Amino acid sequence: MSYDKLPLEPLFKKIDELKPKFIERLRKAIAIPSVSSDETLRPRVVDMANFLKNELTTLGFHDIQMKDLGIQPPPVADPNLKLPPIVLGRFGNDASKKTVLVYGHYDVQPALKEDGWATDPFDMYHDEAKDILFGRGTTDDKGPVIGWLNVIEAHNELKWELPVNLVVCFEGMEESGSLGLEGLIAKEAKQYFSKVDTVCISDNYWLGTSKPVLTYGLRGCNYYQIIVNGPGADLHSGIFGGIVAEPMTDLIKVMSQLVDSTGKILIPGIDDMIAPLTDKEDALYDDIDFSVEELNAASGSKTSLHDNKKDILKHRWRYPSLSLHGIEGGFSGAGAKTVIPAKVIGKFSIRTVPDIDSAKLDQLVFDHVNKLNAQLNSPNTLKVELIHDGNYWVSNPFNEAFTAAAKATEDVWNIKPDFTREGGSIPITITFEKELGTDVLLLPMGRGDDGAHSINEKLNLSNYINGCKTLGGYLHYYGKS
Amino acid sequence: MSYDKLPLEPLFKKIDELKPKFIERLRKAIAIPSVSSDETLRPRVVDMANFLKNELTTLGFHDIQMKDLGIQPPPVADPNLKLPPIVLGRFGNDASKKTVLVYGHYDVQPALKEDGWATDPFDMYHDEAKDILFGRGTTDDKGPVIGWLNVIEAHNELKWELPVNLVVCFEGMEESGSLGLEGLIAKEAKQYFSKVDTVCISDNYWLGTSKPVLTYGLRGCNYYQIIVNGPGADLHSGIFGGIVAEPMTDLIKVMSQLVDSTGKILIPGIDDMIAPLTDKEDALYDDIDFSVEELNAASGSKTSLHDNKKDILKHRWRYPSLSLHGIEGGFSGAGAKTVIPAKVIGKFSIRTVPDIDSAKLDQLVFDHVNKLNAQLNSPNTLKVELIHDGNYWVSNPFNEAFTAAAKATEDVWNIKPDFTREGGSIPITITFEKELGTDVLLLPMGRGDDGAHSINEKLNLSNYINGCKTLGGYLHYYGKS
Repeated sequence: MSYDKLPLEPLFKKIDELKPKFIERLRKAIAIPSVSSDETLRPRVVDMANFLKNELTTLGFHDIQMKDLGIQPPPVADPNLKLPPIVLGRFGNDASKKTVLVYGHYDVQPALKEDGWATDPFDMYHDEAKDILFGRGTTDDKGPVIGWLNVIEAHNELKWELPVNLVVCFEGMEESGSLGLEGLIAKEAKQYFSKVDTVCISDNYWLGTSKPVLTYGLRGCNYYQIIVNGPGADLHSGIFGGIVAEPMTDLIKVMSQLVDSTGKILIPGIDDMIAPLTDKEDALYDDIDFSVEELNAASGSKTSLHDNKKDILKHRWRYPSLSLHGIEGGFSGAGAKTVIPAKVIGKFSIRTVPDIDSAKLDQLVFDHVNKLNAQLNSPNTLKVELIHDGNYWVSNPFNEAFTAAAKATEDVWNIKPDFTREGGSIPITITFEKELGTDVLLLPMGRGDDGAHSINEKLNLSNYINGCKTLGGYLHYYGKS
Repeated sequence: MSYDKLPLEPLFKKIDELKPKFIERLRKAIAIPSVSSDETLRPRVVDMANFLKNELTTLGFHDIQMKDLGIQPPPVADPNLKLPPIVLGRFGNDASKKTVLVYGHYDVQPALKEDGWATDPFDMYHDEAKDILFGRGTTDDKGPVIGWLNVIEAHNELKWELPVNLVVCFEGMEESGSLGLEGLIAKEAKQYFSKVDTVCISDNYWLGTSKPVLTYGLRGCNYYQIIVNGPGADLHSGIFGGIVAEPMTDLIKVMSQLVDSTGKILIPGIDDMIAPLTDKEDALYDDIDFSVEELNAASGSKTSLHDNKKDILKHRWRYPSLSLHGIEGGFSGAGAKTVIPAKVIGKFSIRTVPDIDSAKLDQLVFDHVNKLNAQLNSPNTLKVELIHDGNYWVSNPFNEAFTAAAKATEDVWNIKPDFTREGGSIPITITFEKELGTDVLLLPMGRGDDGAHSINEKLNLSNYINGCKTLGGYLHYYGKS
């Protein structure tokens, strides 16, 4: 890539200067155990929202709003439990500038020292030898959230004008299903978010540990269940084995014909919907920093279905997959139980990719399962149904936002970023795109080995500081585009 | 059947006369809640043992022993919990007579009025309109146990000599795995039980509700598990779906090729071991009182695999069956979870029949499963193993004990009994046969709809009283044989 570099060195230098202050700001955020799934810690989640409100106020944000989302729906222990607020704020309101919405979340996963943490998860530990910051939320997602505040502070210190209008949207329930967020986005699309030109989300990770990435695609997920009903109640296999049709037998037979051991989906018609692989897309995989060994390390096994990097990445990102998750209603305990289960429910899901039509996929699944069941000629009854679906997302990695982020990344890291997709889904991405009618950029700060939901979650200091530079640089390149 | 009838009318008349007393004796036994699975009720189980000891003493039994089985092994709440004793006793010790051992159990299943009982389960209710006795243990197994005592009382009243030596063996842990019984039988085989010629067990039921039966066979059960190991830990199906070999896929594929939806076992070689059906055996099924409708009523569905009585009975009694019980380690809860389980364990069992060799069956199962796994060519590891086995049991329904019991039944009920087998197992049957080297007769007292382990357990008064006559008559015909 060759491009006109912007004179961002003073900004980067200022960010380096402010490093001790930025570490302290993150330490204060980590110290608040804003665990959204623990009802007893809900007051601390609210403390975290107020912490952000104070920071935004101090930095000069305006129109700061703490959006009340009402009571948390069941199941909850406390029927009057309030959802934590969504924190909104603006920095700049210049009609001649573009407007960037940045999303992040201030709640975290649970963490207890006893889980196996080397240090207190809510007392951030700076390993100065390795320059790594350890603590719950360092990478997911307080590091990036605080990063945006740091960018504003650096501009304030430099007395630089921000090149865009910034809108922040920080939620406190991301780790617990983002309750209330979708409704708020829909409601504010034409109000608080009315002038937004693009959305930037920093809530995913580099593919590996050494090369920065920009993420332009996510797979979707359609989740199904097959319900087989037989006898009126569970039966004893001694008395009834061999004389009644067993629901487990039918279910296992049908489930065995959905996918094979090489990962090939056996439902006819799905392959026809997959967008063809172009030479241009194929070439994108060549330079991406990844290996079979990295997959094996991540899975803790040597169970890779593919023997080369490109096939692994394509099957993770741009081809569908089908996973059999389990069976409800069968004997699932340890040991032996001689039961003929009366009703069993098989669970499976299909990860979707362009250009799979979700409704058409459902129909192909239903037709295939019903055809298999008809072949069984069983007196049991079988029903297949969709539990939930979420669409795939793919953006244009050559649009203005990605181009701006790529330039900023190269300025900071002296390397072109990899353009990656992810196998999983981040539902809020599609919500923003749909409700606001804008592009979305996924601009990760942390590394693939940060252990977002594990013990000893960490953020390398270089990722934190260079991440702040990249976020800031992105705003400048995007503002000029 | 034509046979020389013995002059048993005085005995049958005496039993009819004593009916009120026999009802009272059973009422006293039912009033003791000897629930072996409830540790807090253990003292009442011991009370029940003492009740029997007193009855035996009063009736003139000798050499009564309360066999101490020591401490109950874990899991138990009270580490010092004592097992209830096995009650042994003798009536008669005449070297010129044959010796019959009768086995029964004095413990019962749990029962609470709140479970849905129409009356207090431990306060026996005599429905005089229908002449039915309701209460926990009426049919399983206090009715038969008390029945043997009633037989002695009738002889005493008549001042008749018992035609055999009787040995009783009453245990108090049958509903909780018969802990300690097998060891005791082995230990006493050459001691307390040294002169036993035959064993009679009254602890099963008529096939239906109107025709008495004698039971000469039980299926065995070999229980297996297939363990598939893949990734080092559960994985997210978004990130790893399509790029790692999934243990569930392999397991489901293998489990789908063990049995088909018609109940046909797909493991080669098993059919070759099944004893051929002779014309004589085939004819036995003709007169047995059973119907497809009875099966449907029992299973609460119309899922019968066979459309006629004889095929149903043969597949319940004399052909093997394979049931898939469930999967351990997969997602087995309600709703949706996008997990790739790292380790899954499939459970299945095969009901065995003559002349299946248990060890050879294991080998056929292992070979088949391992061959299927090899065909998958999966990087996951699969292991198949036996969890436990129990052999089938078949006796000769034309031997002396069965012939004697058949004559007594016809004397009492004016109909020839059906000769039945059962699909399930009663392990103690095989233990007695093996350790004592004698035949075993299963001589049921109750009906197929008595609800042994359910609410409103009952014993029809006619079964109780005619059952006592049958037990007594059996001793006389056996003594003369």
